[in-house]
Amino acid sequence: MDNRPIGVLDSGMGGLTAVRELLKVLPKEDIVYFGDTGRVPYGTRSAEIVTQYAMQDINFLLSQGVKMVIAACGTVTTTLPKGLSDQFLFPYTGVLYPTVRAALKATRNGKIGVIATATTIRTGAYERELMRLNPAVRVFSKPCPLFVPLVENGYVDRENQVTRLVAEEYLAPLRKEGVDTLILGCTHYPVIAPIIGDLMGEEVALIDSGKAAADYAKELLEEKALLAGRERNGQCGFYVSDSPEQFAENAAMFLGGSFCGEVKKVEITGYPDSFRADSL
Amino acid sequence: MDNRPIGVLDSGMGGLTAVRELLKVLPKEDIVYFGDTGRVPYGTRSAEIVTQYAMQDINFLLSQGVKMVIAACGTVTTTLPKGLSDQFLFPYTGVLYPTVRAALKATRNGKIGVIATATTIRTGAYERELMRLNPAVRVFSKPCPLFVPLVENGYVDRENQVTRLVAEEYLAPLRKEGVDTLILGCTHYPVIAPIIGDLMGEEVALIDSGKAAADYAKELLEEKALLAGRERNGQCGFYVSDSPEQFAENAAMFLGGSFCGEVKKVEITGYPDSFRADSL
Repeated sequence: MDNRPIGVLDSGMGGLTAVRELLKVLPKEDIVYFGDTGRVPYGTRSAEIVTQYAMQDINFLLSQGVKMVIAACGTVTTTLPKGLSDQFLFPYTGVLYPTVRAALKATRNGKIGVIATATTIRTGAYERELMRLNPAVRVFSKPCPLFVPLVENGYVDRENQVTRLVAEEYLAPLRKEGVDTLILGCTHYPVIAPIIGDLMGEEVALIDSGKAAADYAKELLEEKALLAGRERNGQCGFYVSDSPEQFAENAAMFLGGSFCGEVKKVEITGYPDSFRADSL
Repeated sequence: MDNRPIGVLDSGMGGLTAVRELLKVLPKEDIVYFGDTGRVPYGTRSAEIVTQYAMQDINFLLSQGVKMVIAACGTVTTTLPKGLSDQFLFPYTGVLYPTVRAALKATRNGKIGVIATATTIRTGAYERELMRLNPAVRVFSKPCPLFVPLVENGYVDRENQVTRLVAEEYLAPLRKEGVDTLILGCTHYPVIAPIIGDLMGEEVALIDSGKAAADYAKELLEEKALLAGRERNGQCGFYVSDSPEQFAENAAMFLGGSFCGEVKKVEITGYPDSFRADSL
């Protein structure tokens, strides 16, 4: 039993879709969320820079006394070297393994689509992980670089013509290939899942990486006997590297409800940008 | 006569639209371009950080032996304190003054529209500078946050339905106000000027801040007798703080032609982040 909070990081606001799922799956847990809104997006930056930023984010979360870290950010997940995260002295998960596992469980015809930012797709990480766990599946990947700015600018209504046009273009090749399972490999995408679902058809299973990560985090904490032991529901603390007001304004869209939490600003560049075994 | 290069800086790639105009207006000049692609965007950062970054960018350009510096970046232009740039021992210009001057020259009915990123609009800098130079004009501003991602993702064809839809929504209020002059207050926007022009109508003058800065730079160099004296055309050198390959891939779109230059990576954090009279 361990009442310390779960740490969740993202390059911006998308990771809140993972928080939304954590609140459902692990309602008793406290959560500390860090969104690096001052340096978003990570997807267009080099692996070296992303790794430095991610380590600063993790070191901040550790300074808040978290018991585990979820990188609810596709770019961090696929960029942080395994040799580095294997050294962490706390439970850590990205979104990759949990998501891939959920997709393999869902597929019937073995044809799996992956949509994500250009950088995530370029790493080939989803494809490799899917093939590693099941070499028989066929994977079809498509970068959807405009989905993040569209979501962040509120183009999220199910009938939004701009987002539907963009989505039609992105999803056409995946529909043509006949995938029966589609990985939403970016934590922003669940916000427009209704549009994606309309276009893919209801027979296609959409795999929400935030939900998959939340389910996996629950298993990890159970296994290590680190679940919170309190009776009341947990609390959330939100930290960002840019305007707290802007974050608070848009948070409800990602959390899928109303937002009334307190948001604090962090000088994230003040945290170490590398792994130090003594501090972790 | 002075054959040293002109230095151009931007937080990323947008400043290349100023380079495109410099190549037309001052074909004999050498140009050194620095795009801070590893720290883009500047627009969301504090004034203190932007000033430090800008000074590093300028100190890098000076290390390349430039004779003048153009900040082809709206954020640097409006953030760098005048008290600081007034101390520079070399000709310096941002995009604000040249652009505002061109807009005031173009308007007939005194109604001027400004489109830019949300951050630039929020500073109110264009509006203030326009009113300072001519208190009689009326200014109508509109942030267009999706234009940068649309341009960066290649949604730039004149017939692109997505960009046209988004632009229609952004520009409708400016058309309604009857502006006869529209400032493209972000160096990405000239790439989609044909779409903006179609929607505003040909009677509306579009003011390209890159072109305005290039025209102004020519005047400055003429005035100070610093124009290049060679017969052949000048050469361009490109430097970035993140992936040179990614820069090279997208440069043609901003330059409005093909791109075959060499791009080198710079460790920009190694340059002084403040003004030193001895080095400048």
